[in-house]
Amino acid sequence: MANSKYEYVKSFERSQPDILLPNTWIVIRIDGRGFHKLTAKYEFEKPNDRRALELMNAAAVGVFKELPDLVLGYGISDEYSFIFHKDCNLFERRAAKLITTVATTFTSHYIYLWQTYFPGKPLTPPMPSFDGRAVMYPSVQNLRDYMSWRQVDCHINNLYNTTFWTLIQRGGMDAAAAEQRLSGTVSSDKNEILFKEFGINYNNEDNLFKKGSVVFRDFELVDIPAKKPDQAAASSADHPDNDPTATASLDNAQPSSTAAQPLSKTAAEKERKRRAKAKIAVEHVDIIKDDFWLRRPWILSGRAGKLKE
Amino acid sequence: MANSKYEYVKSFERSQPDILLPNTWIVIRIDGRGFHKLTAKYEFEKPNDRRALELMNAAAVGVFKELPDLVLGYGISDEYSFIFHKDCNLFERRAAKLITTVATTFTSHYIYLWQTYFPGKPLTPPMPSFDGRAVMYPSVQNLRDYMSWRQVDCHINNLYNTTFWTLIQRGGMDAAAAEQRLSGTVSSDKNEILFKEFGINYNNEDNLFKKGSVVFRDFELVDIPAKKPDQAAASSADHPDNDPTATASLDNAQPSSTAAQPLSKTAAEKERKRRAKAKIAVEHVDIIKDDFWLRRPWILSGRAGKLKE
Amino acid sequence: MANSKYEYVKSFERSQPDILLPNTWIVIRIDGRGFHKLTAKYEFEKPNDRRALELMNAAAVGVFKELPDLVLGYGISDEYSFIFHKDCNLFERRAAKLITTVATTFTSHYIYLWQTYFPGKPLTPPMPSFDGRAVMYPSVQNLRDYMSWRQVDCHINNLYNTTFWTLIQRGGMDAAAAEQRLSGTVSSDKNEILFKEFGINYNNEDNLFKKGSVVFRDFELVDIPAKKPDQAAASSADHPDNDPTATASLDNAQPSSTAAQPLSKTAAEKERKRRAKAKIAVEHVDIIKDDFWLRRPWILSGRAGKLKE
Amino acid sequence: MANSKYEYVKSFERSQPDILLPNTWIVIRIDGRGFHKLTAKYEFEKPNDRRALELMNAAAVGVFKELPDLVLGYGISDEYSFIFHKDCNLFERRAAKLITTVATTFTSHYIYLWQTYFPGKPLTPPMPSFDGRAVMYPSVQNLRDYMSWRQVDCHINNLYNTTFWTLIQRGGMDAAAAEQRLSGTVSSDKNEILFKEFGINYNNEDNLFKKGSVVFRDFELVDIPAKKPDQAAASSADHPDNDPTATASLDNAQPSSTAAQPLSKTAAEKERKRRAKAKIAVEHVDIIKDDFWLRRPWILSGRAGKLKE
Repeated sequence: MANSKYEYVKSFERSQPDILLPNTWIVIRIDGRGFHKLTAKYEFEKPNDRRALELMNAAAVGVFKELPDLVLGYGISDEYSFIFHKDCNLFERRAAKLITTVATTFTSHYIYLWQTYFPGKPLTPPMPSFDGRAVMYPSVQNLRDYMSWRQVDCHINNLYNTTFWTLIQRGGMDAAAAEQRLSGTVSSDKNEILFKEFGINYNNEDNLFKKGSVVFRDFELVDIPAKKPDQAAASSADHPDNDPTATASLDNAQPSSTAAQPLSKTAAEKERKRRAKAKIAVEHVDIIKDDFWLRRPWILSGRAGKLKE
Repeated sequence: MANSKYEYVKSFERSQPDILLPNTWIVIRIDGRGFHKLTAKYEFEKPNDRRALELMNAAAVGVFKELPDLVLGYGISDEYSFIFHKDCNLFERRAAKLITTVATTFTSHYIYLWQTYFPGKPLTPPMPSFDGRAVMYPSVQNLRDYMSWRQVDCHINNLYNTTFWTLIQRGGMDAAAAEQRLSGTVSSDKNEILFKEFGINYNNEDNLFKKGSVVFRDFELVDIPAKKPDQAAASSADHPDNDPTATASLDNAQPSSTAAQPLSKTAAEKERKRRAKAKIAVEHVDIIKDDFWLRRPWILSGRAGKLKE
Repeated sequence: MANSKYEYVKSFERSQPDILLPNTWIVIRIDGRGFHKLTAKYEFEKPNDRRALELMNAAAVGVFKELPDLVLGYGISDEYSFIFHKDCNLFERRAAKLITTVATTFTSHYIYLWQTYFPGKPLTPPMPSFDGRAVMYPSVQNLRDYMSWRQVDCHINNLYNTTFWTLIQRGGMDAAAAEQRLSGTVSSDKNEILFKEFGINYNNEDNLFKKGSVVFRDFELVDIPAKKPDQAAASSADHPDNDPTATASLDNAQPSSTAAQPLSKTAAEKERKRRAKAKIAVEHVDIIKDDFWLRRPWILSGRAGKLKE
Repeated sequence: MANSKYEYVKSFERSQPDILLPNTWIVIRIDGRGFHKLTAKYEFEKPNDRRALELMNAAAVGVFKELPDLVLGYGISDEYSFIFHKDCNLFERRAAKLITTVATTFTSHYIYLWQTYFPGKPLTPPMPSFDGRAVMYPSVQNLRDYMSWRQVDCHINNLYNTTFWTLIQRGGMDAAAAEQRLSGTVSSDKNEILFKEFGINYNNEDNLFKKGSVVFRDFELVDIPAKKPDQAAASSADHPDNDPTATASLDNAQPSSTAAQPLSKTAAEKERKRRAKAKIAVEHVDIIKDDFWLRRPWILSGRAGKLKE
């Protein structure tokens, strides 16, 4: 065939390592590129623009609908994490394909939905875009620590931004003065500034801003047995606290099937279809403590729960 | 900081290899995902839909405007290749970042421009998306062979598709019969079918379909010295033929600066700005023979040419 | 400095991906290169040469003494697997360094000890050498399945080789005839050939040949609670049988500390020293069933046991 | 087959990226592990131990004899670099296999030859071992810059060590005083200390120490045309100076065949055999300037030269 003379160049593709290690949780995290300029250009509200966050969430829901293999998503600001189950074999776990599929599907929905969330502000080039990466986590503990890391980041950033912009918008400071004022402060200091100087109770802020957005397939919640008093005390400990032995007991709490070998191809396909039937929920809840995970065992087990009616 | 307990999870990112080898040409190729369904849903014309191809090209031009480091692009059907110069240090050559940036910027423009090219056919989910990959090529020869490979592919596929759809649309065959008819035929057979049975001279088909689309920054063409007779003979050899010694002489024809070390940061930044000033050309020309490259030395040298007036 | 002009070449090293994913079990497997020729040159006995296997084991013990991070080894024929604990951070988990250190330390001892095991057969070039690779396994189940895979391989190969060479050495067949005779046979067929035709009970063969060689640090064995009858029955099932739920209960049987975060640097250093004090055992035992692992919890926990007196 | 239940673990090997990019020069560099202790244990002479260096060289020659694909080697102190031609396809360019084969073959010869070079000092555990890595270089310029980098390093280290140990051995200083004395000095200062204080002309030191050891297959040297005066002046410039345009002309000086596609399998096998017939030379010469390369075109062309008689 006339083509063969050049086709040797395909062999250069092999040397790009690409297969993500089997039996590890895959996190694809995307970040808005140059969103600093974007927020200025389209006049996003500070410290949080509700429309912008809801657009991010709507795009994430679009991604979930097109990729039934996804089990969990988490978004804050202009970043979103998408989690594939450790048993997932989509695209044979090829990293580049997984990253670009998630990132371009997200982008596609983001642009498509822009006018819905910013009706008076048509997009013009340069256009929004996102970079992405894939990270593997071998254990449930590692995965939950990743999620906790992002939610703690959300909390820290939002408390800072809320105080910073309150000092500016209501305190009349300029950015340099506000930054100077916050330099060296800890969380309690910022809470106090908000409360004493502006009468704002940070706890009453919107959970969309404080907790970020958790995306998952919405099956019926599972009851969890009442804890013994001392355990309850440990678990009700203040955010952000995570007890590794609690997580260990979570591992035990999972359906025993999760310890088994991955599903057969047919069974996996069936599961995908059952997952695809569930509605996609977007909630602004704590994902650091155990409750979220214990009541939604399908996320970690990868086995669809009972459909809500 | 409260965050530190979970931050160890960042260390898992290090184990994803990501830096593309320095001093190699970087090809980012993106492909439409599931475009077979898409072409049916939006009723693309067969064998080629001019609007769809022009939308691809317009999105590629959008990418070129946002990424001045790009030196060349080539598109056929639902795929596009974007080339970064071997000296390019964008994102420190991190593969995931380069792939996702190119792929999502392309997607962003594709969705944004859709209504311009398909005014009567509004997009609805599931949305178009693209997967992507990065490949490194160490030599100019390898890079040109890659480009030749894609253009030969364009030629082979288009000749097949043109004949196949002519047999169906004008010959009244169904798909199975047309496939059967073409089974085992070579190029000359297909040319003959088109010409003898339908009066179509394949050579008169549109270059957009026959050659694909080449995207580059459009500086003033450079004169090339007349060749000696025997060289001219060799070079005018039939498509697709590539003479490695011709390419070698091409290497020699490059400005001597290309053999030198990469530019300093400041000089590289200057070059980026000069490149950014050039118009983006989309042409449907041969990139297998030397002429394209010799008359546009800025593509391989990475040094901006003289701006057109 | 005069050197700086060339030092840029170091940057090319970065693009070789090298860090093994944290929290995964690391298996370094080495294989003799061209040992087929070697066994002919030094007249190894067939089907098994005890001296050759004991030399392999002695070299492995040498490696264990120099690398206290190793928790387990397994050797058959001319291959050896060395396992680093999932929490191991030796050489910051750089793959090339781990592979070459294990492989060259093994080679060094192998050459050094050769004359001890083959006193009448001095080495001459070409010299023995070994290639190696690193594989990561995220879970205890995966790691144990890897070990089981190798031990089942040992069993299958040894039964074949034993029968093959008995047909030749005692049955007077040539290689082609013996191969033909064994074609299509299953294990029970081979057992029967050995027993009925040559009076050999395969079960009485040496465990060195049947089970391979397991290397580990030898602390005091731990008592395991008596099993309920039905469990005992399941576990005494024929080799090679592995019950994933048994493994799951093994996970639970581990000291709870293993579920926790990795040790601090100081504590890890202490553990290394405690491990370094233990004798290195080489045993020829079943590693497919649970008993081996339950009675030696230090292997999977990575925490030294009680020193033998 | 009984084995299949566990064999899935093999799929975990795929995710280790391993294929080195085609058409790049492969450098395998090995380094002695913990040789600081080793030099003390076996009382190596300071600043250079001739026996130790000659043992390294002898081991390298052993590696060259067993691996005909090697085109060049370079050793200093306890490190050795081995270069495979950019067209080499040994082990399908799998990195782990190339690294471990080179490193264990070297180790094997090192241990085997130890007693020849250190007759009165038998080895005892812990044994010498080496770690290794692979680096790819896309161009001849990059490869030569790598070699130059190592030889400049040799020069800088040896001048420092020679002065340091002279201050101690003949100047009666202790290590701290000698280090203090050399702090902040440049090359000319060290040359002056050696000459004025100890009557040592560094230029008269042994080239084994000053230049390191270059290993290659020894074909008949090729004559190079006399240079024009200005070029000669440029090339005779002081060490370590490398003119990129000179290298460019070197590229042109290569047989034109080097610009062509890699050899066919049969032709490559023939070349291997021709290479294997040449003696292995170990020389202590400049590899920074062009002469070494121009007179030995077979190194970069990968085509055997004319055998010496």
